[in-house]
Amino acid sequence: MKAVIAMETLQGVLKALSAIDTEGKMQVGPEGWHVKMVDPANVAMIDVTIPASAFDFYQSDTGEIALDFARIQTMLNGKEPVTIQIVDQQVEISTGRHKFSLRLLDPSAVKPTPRIPEIDLPAAVEIDATEWTAALKAALAIMNKSDCVIIEQTDEMFRLSAKSEAESYVSEWPLTSLTGIKNGMGRALFTLDYLTDISRALAGPVKIETGVDYPMRMSCRISKASVSYLIAPRIENDL
Amino acid sequence: MKAVIAMETLQGVLKALSAIDTEGKMQVGPEGWHVKMVDPANVAMIDVTIPASAFDFYQSDTGEIALDFARIQTMLNGKEPVTIQIVDQQVEISTGRHKFSLRLLDPSAVKPTPRIPEIDLPAAVEIDATEWTAALKAALAIMNKSDCVIIEQTDEMFRLSAKSEAESYVSEWPLTSLTGIKNGMGRALFTLDYLTDISRALAGPVKIETGVDYPMRMSCRISKASVSYLIAPRIENDL
Amino acid sequence: MKAVIAMETLQGVLKALSAIDTEGKMQVGPEGWHVKMVDPANVAMIDVTIPASAFDFYQSDTGEIALDFARIQTMLNGKEPVTIQIVDQQVEISTGRHKFSLRLLDPSAVKPTPRIPEIDLPAAVEIDATEWTAALKAALAIMNKSDCVIIEQTDEMFRLSAKSEAESYVSEWPLTSLTGIKNGMGRALFTLDYLTDISRALAGPVKIETGVDYPMRMSCRISKASVSYLIAPRIENDL
Repeated sequence: MKAVIAMETLQGVLKALSAIDTEGKMQVGPEGWHVKMVDPANVAMIDVTIPASAFDFYQSDTGEIALDFARIQTMLNGKEPVTIQIVDQQVEISTGRHKFSLRLLDPSAVKPTPRIPEIDLPAAVEIDATEWTAALKAALAIMNKSDCVIIEQTDEMFRLSAKSEAESYVSEWPLTSLTGIKNGMGRALFTLDYLTDISRALAGPVKIETGVDYPMRMSCRISKASVSYLIAPRIENDL
Repeated sequence: MKAVIAMETLQGVLKALSAIDTEGKMQVGPEGWHVKMVDPANVAMIDVTIPASAFDFYQSDTGEIALDFARIQTMLNGKEPVTIQIVDQQVEISTGRHKFSLRLLDPSAVKPTPRIPEIDLPAAVEIDATEWTAALKAALAIMNKSDCVIIEQTDEMFRLSAKSEAESYVSEWPLTSLTGIKNGMGRALFTLDYLTDISRALAGPVKIETGVDYPMRMSCRISKASVSYLIAPRIENDL
Repeated sequence: MKAVIAMETLQGVLKALSAIDTEGKMQVGPEGWHVKMVDPANVAMIDVTIPASAFDFYQSDTGEIALDFARIQTMLNGKEPVTIQIVDQQVEISTGRHKFSLRLLDPSAVKPTPRIPEIDLPAAVEIDATEWTAALKAALAIMNKSDCVIIEQTDEMFRLSAKSEAESYVSEWPLTSLTGIKNGMGRALFTLDYLTDISRALAGPVKIETGVDYPMRMSCRISKASVSYLIAPRIENDL
């Protein structure tokens, strides 16, 4: 496999993966790269596709490689395109004047690629990543990272809210102010922790799909790559 | 009470209060807001007035409410005006898309509002907050935060100086280079700690009033609010 | 001695010295200042010359003073020229409104000025400080600060490389892309730690002189001062 890709795209994808885990398996093939990972607590999954057309140069047979994505992320710097090659069980990464060589991980020592359930979610909206991140940040001002927020979609509103005994926070988007609407009911609890980790990797318009006590799917494009997260809900007791 | 105020003004006032304590009581009334607080060690007091005219919208009966100012400060973000309402023992704070609700503190559990002595101080100058902060920062390069500096006004100079056994620092402003002069003698010691905490909240021209071994008063405007600190001197032994 | 010097020059020189040690001796004389220091582990030396012409004003007899350079560095701030005077065993430093006085160190308590060997090194290139720093930063992504890198010059290349059991990094500059070439062979190991500390003080084009298992000399100009480091190589075992 030999691939040349814009630094920005590669860094965006590695950042997206880092919200889930540090290492994983990547399917490579003539059609591009494909990474599916689940986080150590089995709460959130990521599904990333980088089509061959997203690369400046791309050539690859079909196969699977195991990589330390976090390690590669620390190596990248600057703005020059990145060339990635697999040579003798080493990944060779070069950008500008810098050339790194890193041993491939042993695939049997890396968590297997998860099967990501294809769930048809009844409700959807598109929200700008910046607004979503601002709402999570505001919720964090009164909640702990381990607390839950409620994500809801009604006939009129998309809403993120958080409540403790003495305090509450709510952010509302009238559906009339949003695009990408799929009318339906959504309501479930999610841990702030996961949402904030994931939000750091989101960019541009983010499609948010929900259902009643169903997982939430968040999808966006990172340059020419497509990234999708599926996050399991928490069960509501007496929150 | 319902009030709409520019984010910048509210944040400036909360920052000013945070130099003294995290929570306190606020007098509200048709004429505006009024907060007086003393720090836990009884060294520095603050007196803040936000007149009704400083608000974009203002309506209030007379009363007293106890607030966790520091908590409110962490919630505020962005640049949109802030709406504050008291509803059923809750403070409702909304700005842009974000809406917080926070329980009022129990007034009996919050330190009583101090009486701030009306002292007529013999000497005064006006110094720009930036220059004052730079002088404190320079003094901190050779002193500890718990050390004292001497603040002096003579017929010719306003002076901040610091001295240890082997080192010294002095910053002098000839009175001819300053405005807002009240001719008189001032000389007292103040802990750097308090001065630096307070300096973070100061903006624009700061009126500094002193006397010989008297407290120092520092006053400035934060947008349309007026803020005044009164700081007790340290007794000079053999510094 | 009385000297007036641009803040930027003085800060640049103090930063250069801080890579080697916090205090040392300075030779002063009608021709300017001269500082030679060796680091506590005797691995790296610095040789700094600030000619009288580098000052805005300069007047000095011949002598030696011992200074806490690190302490002076913390005092300096802003952009105004700095006036330095020796008065009664005190260094008086003033800049803008700020005036510091600091006791001279006891010369007998400060490490003696080292003799810096005059080594004729066979190979040399000039590399921009920014590129050099980027290469060290990249090497640090896969190495520890206490690890070694190989610095090499061949007939065709100047090269910085690092290697661990599973990973490697290399940055190459074809000699044809560089200036200041002295053709010769260079190859030696240096601890990343020293190189990164020193690189923080380098600016503009840096002359890098090497030899086979010889020390490396790095020289550059900091405003009108000239700075030169000599760094001892590590002996290669089985790296």
